[in-house]
Amino acid sequence: MNTPPASTDVLAQLRAVLGDRVDTDHSALQGARADKSGHAAAGMPLALVRATSVSDVQETLRIASATGTPVVTRGAGTGLAGGANAGTGEIALSVRGMDRILEVRPDDLLAVVEPGIINADLNAALAEHGLWWAPDPASRAISTVGGNIATGAGGLLCAKYGVVRDAVLGVDLVLADGRLLSLGHRTVKGVTGLDLTSLVIGSEGTLGVVVGAILKLRRLIPGEVCTIAATFPDVRAAAEASAAVTASGAQPSIMELMDAASLSAVHALLQLEPPTPGAAQLTIQTDGPAAAGEADAIAAVLNAAGGTVAVSHDRAEGERLLAIRRAMHPAMETLGTALIEDVSVPRSALPAMFDEIARVEREHGLVIPTVAHAGDGNLHPNFIFDATPDENGVIEAPEYIWAAADDLFRAALRLGGTLTGEHGIGVLKKRWLADELGDAQWELQRDITRVFDPAGILNPGKVFAW
Amino acid sequence: MNTPPASTDVLAQLRAVLGDRVDTDHSALQGARADKSGHAAAGMPLALVRATSVSDVQETLRIASATGTPVVTRGAGTGLAGGANAGTGEIALSVRGMDRILEVRPDDLLAVVEPGIINADLNAALAEHGLWWAPDPASRAISTVGGNIATGAGGLLCAKYGVVRDAVLGVDLVLADGRLLSLGHRTVKGVTGLDLTSLVIGSEGTLGVVVGAILKLRRLIPGEVCTIAATFPDVRAAAEASAAVTASGAQPSIMELMDAASLSAVHALLQLEPPTPGAAQLTIQTDGPAAAGEADAIAAVLNAAGGTVAVSHDRAEGERLLAIRRAMHPAMETLGTALIEDVSVPRSALPAMFDEIARVEREHGLVIPTVAHAGDGNLHPNFIFDATPDENGVIEAPEYIWAAADDLFRAALRLGGTLTGEHGIGVLKKRWLADELGDAQWELQRDITRVFDPAGILNPGKVFAW
Repeated sequence: MNTPPASTDVLAQLRAVLGDRVDTDHSALQGARADKSGHAAAGMPLALVRATSVSDVQETLRIASATGTPVVTRGAGTGLAGGANAGTGEIALSVRGMDRILEVRPDDLLAVVEPGIINADLNAALAEHGLWWAPDPASRAISTVGGNIATGAGGLLCAKYGVVRDAVLGVDLVLADGRLLSLGHRTVKGVTGLDLTSLVIGSEGTLGVVVGAILKLRRLIPGEVCTIAATFPDVRAAAEASAAVTASGAQPSIMELMDAASLSAVHALLQLEPPTPGAAQLTIQTDGPAAAGEADAIAAVLNAAGGTVAVSHDRAEGERLLAIRRAMHPAMETLGTALIEDVSVPRSALPAMFDEIARVEREHGLVIPTVAHAGDGNLHPNFIFDATPDENGVIEAPEYIWAAADDLFRAALRLGGTLTGEHGIGVLKKRWLADELGDAQWELQRDITRVFDPAGILNPGKVFAW
Repeated sequence: MNTPPASTDVLAQLRAVLGDRVDTDHSALQGARADKSGHAAAGMPLALVRATSVSDVQETLRIASATGTPVVTRGAGTGLAGGANAGTGEIALSVRGMDRILEVRPDDLLAVVEPGIINADLNAALAEHGLWWAPDPASRAISTVGGNIATGAGGLLCAKYGVVRDAVLGVDLVLADGRLLSLGHRTVKGVTGLDLTSLVIGSEGTLGVVVGAILKLRRLIPGEVCTIAATFPDVRAAAEASAAVTASGAQPSIMELMDAASLSAVHALLQLEPPTPGAAQLTIQTDGPAAAGEADAIAAVLNAAGGTVAVSHDRAEGERLLAIRRAMHPAMETLGTALIEDVSVPRSALPAMFDEIARVEREHGLVIPTVAHAGDGNLHPNFIFDATPDENGVIEAPEYIWAAADDLFRAALRLGGTLTGEHGIGVLKKRWLADELGDAQWELQRDITRVFDPAGILNPGKVFAW
């Protein structure tokens, strides 16, 4: 790597090529330091480049490569692992402004888009064609498709309709040196060479900058949507019931679990009647031509598992029930600062994982409100703490919180699970990455990033860094 | 790389560790030179190692690495691109004997298997649990799961139920130096680090040896299966009808297209009445709870497109109709030696691709019987020629055949397609790989293989070789 020149030279070079798309306003730089995790990078980035074209991205990376300046790519900044936070001396490269839909092909069930488009905006446009892009992170109203790709996002519908990795056919990628590659294909099948598209999905800005994507679409699902709400005396009973639903062969489109602490916080926020103390809830939806029959079958499983069950065939009532789940994130913000965790376990291990969470709560003296995408085994335990920003405005989770999180991560790994189901490693989980991958695989993965980015200017200090 | 020592030393080292699992019988070596493409490697491999354990694979690779000996991994040898053909001085490493099912988890919808198990044998065992592994290459009765993974296999059901890449959660991989890595996870969601599992799928033996896999299963589909057979005056009309079915929003489980030359050869082989001259056929299946309604809707689309349509609700009759499609490969063998091609195009481009095939036939003076997985846009044009094996028994397609294939490949790429939908690059298509990937991506991919295999001992001369 070249010795970084004075930052003023880098800025001058960027400005010469990109003009007023180089933003150095204090508030812009301040915004580029943080994401929705509550974590912020130390120090201020050099500039926020607001790219409006592929060429802008290429020019930025050419200058970054020539001057050895780190580049942190950002979309809407809704990440939960600090993966897009830009700090001292770094260029924050925003592709949020590249938000066009370039092509929609109902006959081929694909769309070509720029990375900055908001997931919900894309889906609103696709709905006019009777189509949708299935990945539906809870953040879909505020997160970008490019960010969904960079993190390998999941969401509520994954067990039935897949994750981002199942819904992207190809990406255009600008490498660290500014070269543009087209990865993947427009066809349903394609095995020409290595699957670099999948490698880029979830690579969190370490391999290149995604400047376009060929998305695999679905047709909107015809038929009714049925919603089932079931209350259980405790979270373990709810987890066992959700595992029984999966084991029964039913395939709900959504199956969300909320524990007592989550439910209580949301009810308070939404000014609903307080829930029964200790009670946990499953909210389940079925869709498609067989929705009603599946809902009845699931209700029977839940009843047999000791639940108090209500089935609704009304879409509005279903949305109202799901709104309780969707209010989780704002409800946590009323309790303090939340470190939102993201472990995933095999579905049969959900009850055991809730036992582990109860143990961690007990042994570390914490309350850890937890929701789970119970249909796919992905849990979001929320570690709540009182945050005091330091002199730079940086919020760090205190060590006692990380100690509890560490305990929880190791429990998930012991149960055959993984550190992160859909949020990514970013900065917040990098110290556990080698625990899951093993040292040999960690090194191999790091070496692969070096093939794309020999000088290590793409998102340094994230994912593959100690 | 070390200078290769006398092959007798390598053999002695292999025998010292692996005993009679090192096979040097002439017929065994002869078999390891070829696959189902009709192509065979030049010369004889050094030995066929019949691994029965992960440790056997590791020992083989340690010796290969220490002595700089190339290793060609093989399953059942049913490939169609020459990717597993072992030649002079190479170790053919068979994992066919590693064929155990280690775990079936109906509650988590996963199975853990060794690579040598035959796809159909696995599915027979899974059916007892009400489960299946969706990838169904036409070769499923004779091909291994490991080979399906190595090629990124597809099949007939892909448009509805996905390809291998959609159905593998993790793989155990032995690297060139003998180290064992566990890639991927057992969970539905998982974004910890780079997705090396997807990178290994379709990597054709260039990254390591797959010695185990965690497979993502589905439950057997309840309900009836409806089969639709529709005849059209010519292949273009059939292709347009299939595109109309996709555009209508229907989702058949299978949609196979046979052109006149294919149909005629199969009817002759099966001793059926000759088909109407020039006529092409679509064979379509629907399944699941809505099968009957979907079949009626599809029949209406086919009628409107000018087809002569028959719908059957009888499974046995459906199997009889599909048997005509499944007899394609043996029927081609009655015509001569077939170079079976594998281009894939966006589904809307199917009619245009058939126009291109007709043009190639005309301009090159050939008949190219073609079947297509019309539901996903994957075509198998069969280039028929009279083969004369050379003195080593090697069959090479003559240059006039490759010139016609070249013309066809370029047409597929112009239509937004890809060189290979499901067979892979192997040796037979390596000279076109850079045409599709571009030189920069070709080099990047080749450099990635070097991270796994710095000395280049894994399947050299395949995929990334001129």
